[in-house]
Amino acid sequence: MPSLNTLPTPSLLLNKAALERNITTMHQHMAQLDVALRPHLKTAKSAAIARLATAGQAGGVTVSTLREADYFFTQGFSDLIYAVGIIPAKLDTVAALIQRGADLKLITDNTTAARAVVDYAQSHNLTLKVLIEIDSGAQRAGVLPESEDLLDIGRILHQSPKVDLAGVLTHAGQSYRCNTPAAIRTVAQQERAAIVQAAERLRAAGLPCPIVSAGSTPTAALAEDLSGITEMRPGVFVFYDLDQLAIGACQREDLALSVLASVIGHNRHVGHLILDAGALALSKDLSAQDFRPEVAYGEVCDYLTQAPLAGLYVRSVSQEHGLVPVNDPNWYDCLPVGSKVRILPNHACITAAAYDSYQVLEGSTITAQWDRVNGW
Amino acid sequence: MPSLNTLPTPSLLLNKAALERNITTMHQHMAQLDVALRPHLKTAKSAAIARLATAGQAGGVTVSTLREADYFFTQGFSDLIYAVGIIPAKLDTVAALIQRGADLKLITDNTTAARAVVDYAQSHNLTLKVLIEIDSGAQRAGVLPESEDLLDIGRILHQSPKVDLAGVLTHAGQSYRCNTPAAIRTVAQQERAAIVQAAERLRAAGLPCPIVSAGSTPTAALAEDLSGITEMRPGVFVFYDLDQLAIGACQREDLALSVLASVIGHNRHVGHLILDAGALALSKDLSAQDFRPEVAYGEVCDYLTQAPLAGLYVRSVSQEHGLVPVNDPNWYDCLPVGSKVRILPNHACITAAAYDSYQVLEGSTITAQWDRVNGW
Repeated sequence: MPSLNTLPTPSLLLNKAALERNITTMHQHMAQLDVALRPHLKTAKSAAIARLATAGQAGGVTVSTLREADYFFTQGFSDLIYAVGIIPAKLDTVAALIQRGADLKLITDNTTAARAVVDYAQSHNLTLKVLIEIDSGAQRAGVLPESEDLLDIGRILHQSPKVDLAGVLTHAGQSYRCNTPAAIRTVAQQERAAIVQAAERLRAAGLPCPIVSAGSTPTAALAEDLSGITEMRPGVFVFYDLDQLAIGACQREDLALSVLASVIGHNRHVGHLILDAGALALSKDLSAQDFRPEVAYGEVCDYLTQAPLAGLYVRSVSQEHGLVPVNDPNWYDCLPVGSKVRILPNHACITAAAYDSYQVLEGSTITAQWDRVNGW
Repeated sequence: MPSLNTLPTPSLLLNKAALERNITTMHQHMAQLDVALRPHLKTAKSAAIARLATAGQAGGVTVSTLREADYFFTQGFSDLIYAVGIIPAKLDTVAALIQRGADLKLITDNTTAARAVVDYAQSHNLTLKVLIEIDSGAQRAGVLPESEDLLDIGRILHQSPKVDLAGVLTHAGQSYRCNTPAAIRTVAQQERAAIVQAAERLRAAGLPCPIVSAGSTPTAALAEDLSGITEMRPGVFVFYDLDQLAIGACQREDLALSVLASVIGHNRHVGHLILDAGALALSKDLSAQDFRPEVAYGEVCDYLTQAPLAGLYVRSVSQEHGLVPVNDPNWYDCLPVGSKVRILPNHACITAAAYDSYQVLEGSTITAQWDRVNGW
């Protein structure tokens, strides 16, 4: 196995102890609130991490692509929600997974897709399970909990003998736009109120609603009351990142993911270090900038301890270069050409997507490589 | 073979006719200016495209990662420049490629790496070829052409019997910050002046400088005089993109790369279409925003003709969702749930990196899948 000193750069490092702590903390918090955890695997995209995140849990998982659904089902995860609105063209792939034995549930927020699912299930003599997506304030997808659309979609689905109306689902993405734990808790209340309202309206109309699914990492991590919700679907909680730290959803010691990079040059006439981690290795995500503009494309840390190197940030990137301005020329001596740094990314989900695998770090030893399922 | 109507979404579409025109135009322009083309394959990362881009040319190519070097060498491309500053830790991988027969050339901009290359070549009894990287105004990497460092590095390399000082190399990345052809031509003159000055200073000091390598896509496309330069290394010219269009480096009909996406929902209470192409399918690159802020994450086009759908842009993204605001509700009828669009990306190099392969489009038929070599 390579060590931190011999790994090629850039590499994606995963601190196993932090990962396990983050998972344990979420398991405990969900148990306290009496709600199931259905981790969103769009972040990790890794069976090894999925096994840790589901250990001792109900076992259900969430996916963001049908390629993930196929990979995780093949790895033994059969209770899956594909949490992106279904369209008719994707039903053949869905059907193939269900015929292989996957308990794959779909979501929709519109009558067009609902009717198409009903038609497909009937014409293919296949049972399809569908949740209705609710907009609890993120203003991305989903019907409003008070809308007529909710009941219209519910009736279309429920009237078909080949479709199970499996419940309602929401994602309070607006929690990412908060910057205090108190503001996140307010969003968590808003999320809960909306999804429970949607569930109760369906039930009052005589429609089934067994699953009441909610959750973003911030709301899952900080919620104090989830009554009426049956499951939460946080994703990035396994790793956390600078954006989650900036909004107050985690602590610095929770940051489990980083990019190992090398110093490949010193541009003394401009005043920066040049790293071999740029737009592809870090992504162009700038999400921590809302509350910590100094972070830019990532925070530069000691490669062994992950202690921040005060004042060093990746201020600009091109495809394979990251530039770190330095005010004090002593940095050129501290970080000579060929030395290594660790970079904390803004948004773990997006940064990780550039890598085939995780380099699993225990202390300063690499103990495993865990694969990822990228693409579509 | 799938058609545009049956391809899964998101998919990466490559218009073969536009690709071939872009390559032919660049070949002709380089021939007129009497300079070799050494295409930078960091954009395409594809052997099929590399074969088109090098057809009838000197054959040399440029790579941005050692994984690309391995892939392209395995595919028959032996004359390679790895155009990211070398560090000692990467020399074992370099040596393995050279021992397999690759004519792999390195670059450096500092005496630390230069001395390490010399030591490695001598201790491994291997000949290494190195170019000196010059900063011609991009202020990324490279020594200044008038600097003492240039001659110091040159002497360190040339004094070793096991190292060939192969020349000088620059990339005028500041051309991306222009917004007119005239401004790009000024940068092209600046790039040429700097790299030729560096070459002449080395020669005046009795040092060899056979290769004088320059080029970004904007400067290569618009330069009017490249005398003194031996080769140009444009990359994104094979595809072009909205950023290149915004700065005046190409025309709209040159845009060869797009993302095929589906409409997965209509959020009428907020006022947007929801697409299944988000931060991963498009990237979070916003480079066209400098000159065309309305573009945001990409311009939405008709999926068959690539004609812009006037006023439709992907204004926000999450991992697998792209949101397209609509002012006119007629768009909901024109683009029902399940319909397809094509999205023109800001920065082709970064967007393409999320995909395993290109769907090669001739007319409205998919005629091939071409693979890509991602990662490190």
